[in-house]
Amino acid sequence: MMTKISLATSEKLQIINITKKIQDVITKEVGLLFISIPHTTAGLIINEDEENLKADMKEFYSMLSKGHWNHDRIDNNAGAHLAATTINNSLIVPISRRLLGLGTWQSILFVELDGPRDRNVHLMELSA
Amino acid sequence: MMTKISLATSEKLQIINITKKIQDVITKEVGLLFISIPHTTAGLIINEDEENLKADMKEFYSMLSKGHWNHDRIDNNAGAHLAATTINNSLIVPISRRLLGLGTWQSILFVELDGPRDRNVHLMELSA
Amino acid sequence: MMTKISLATSEKLQIINITKKIQDVITKEVGLLFISIPHTTAGLIINEDEENLKADMKEFYSMLSKGHWNHDRIDNNAGAHLAATTINNSLIVPISRRLLGLGTWQSILFVELDGPRDRNVHLMELSA
Repeated sequence: MMTKISLATSEKLQIINITKKIQDVITKEVGLLFISIPHTTAGLIINEDEENLKADMKEFYSMLSKGHWNHDRIDNNAGAHLAATTINNSLIVPISRRLLGLGTWQSILFVELDGPRDRNVHLMELSA
Repeated sequence: MMTKISLATSEKLQIINITKKIQDVITKEVGLLFISIPHTTAGLIINEDEENLKADMKEFYSMLSKGHWNHDRIDNNAGAHLAATTINNSLIVPISRRLLGLGTWQSILFVELDGPRDRNVHLMELSA
Repeated sequence: MMTKISLATSEKLQIINITKKIQDVITKEVGLLFISIPHTTAGLIINEDEENLKADMKEFYSMLSKGHWNHDRIDNNAGAHLAATTINNSLIVPISRRLLGLGTWQSILFVELDGPRDRNVHLMELSA
């Protein structure tokens, strides 16, 4: 069964910690959680939620995908597509005791690369 | 059960939309599709199939992995290996009503980074 | 059921082939292996285990994430976090005949980006 979380991003580039929102919909005691997004100018990563680092991420994805792109003549967001392909549009996280199995410094971060937009995150619990 | 799709790429760098080929082999009504490649100089991404953007992707992966590499003395394709590690060699996509659960702008793209070559894509349908 | 492999890395950047260690713990005849790490400054890739290429990877991830980062004022490893987000913190590999289903040139490589550290790799065998 698929569950959906909705997000309204407010900036062009934005890193949003969605770990708690995801944790709140888990119903299985043990298994795996498949997390995916239906978007092509955003991504998902598992990394540290630290303010300076989140600012660095925005600068990094922007820098990485800087260029004179053909797609910008159609829709001025080529860099957002290109950066998105270097991160993930889905993740799998283990579930145990009804909790996300994340390391001490790991959070699930939604990476907005072409906001502000309304975004969705799809969740599917799987048996292990 | 594993199904295989074969591709013959024709360029050094090439972005090929394989969504329809993959859709055609789906037999499950509901579940997940695990898609993987046995290659180290190619990758898989989920992004938009737009001509300008596909040209930009080729330029982007090429630019990203430009350098003077040691592996080039053995096999002149270090950049292809390095760029491949920044994208995916497997993907998981939900299946519902026997259809790939992709967003409006999402296509499954095979990224050739060291063609032309004969390539394979492996598919395995999983129960949800 | 989760199995754990422990690694002690010895360099700041290091590429370690963990394929054999992973192969040794497989018990299922057929299925999928979910491999994940609880870390935010390391990653997993599937690529070729060739000495020159492994040296190139270290140079590549270092070059890719070079910059003046805010997070470096807190903990001098922003580049390691940023590079980690461009690779994977989990992988899925098919199992058949109790063997990892990898291509000829594919190895499972642990990418240390902020060593030396004690690291863990978690393994979970799934039914297909």
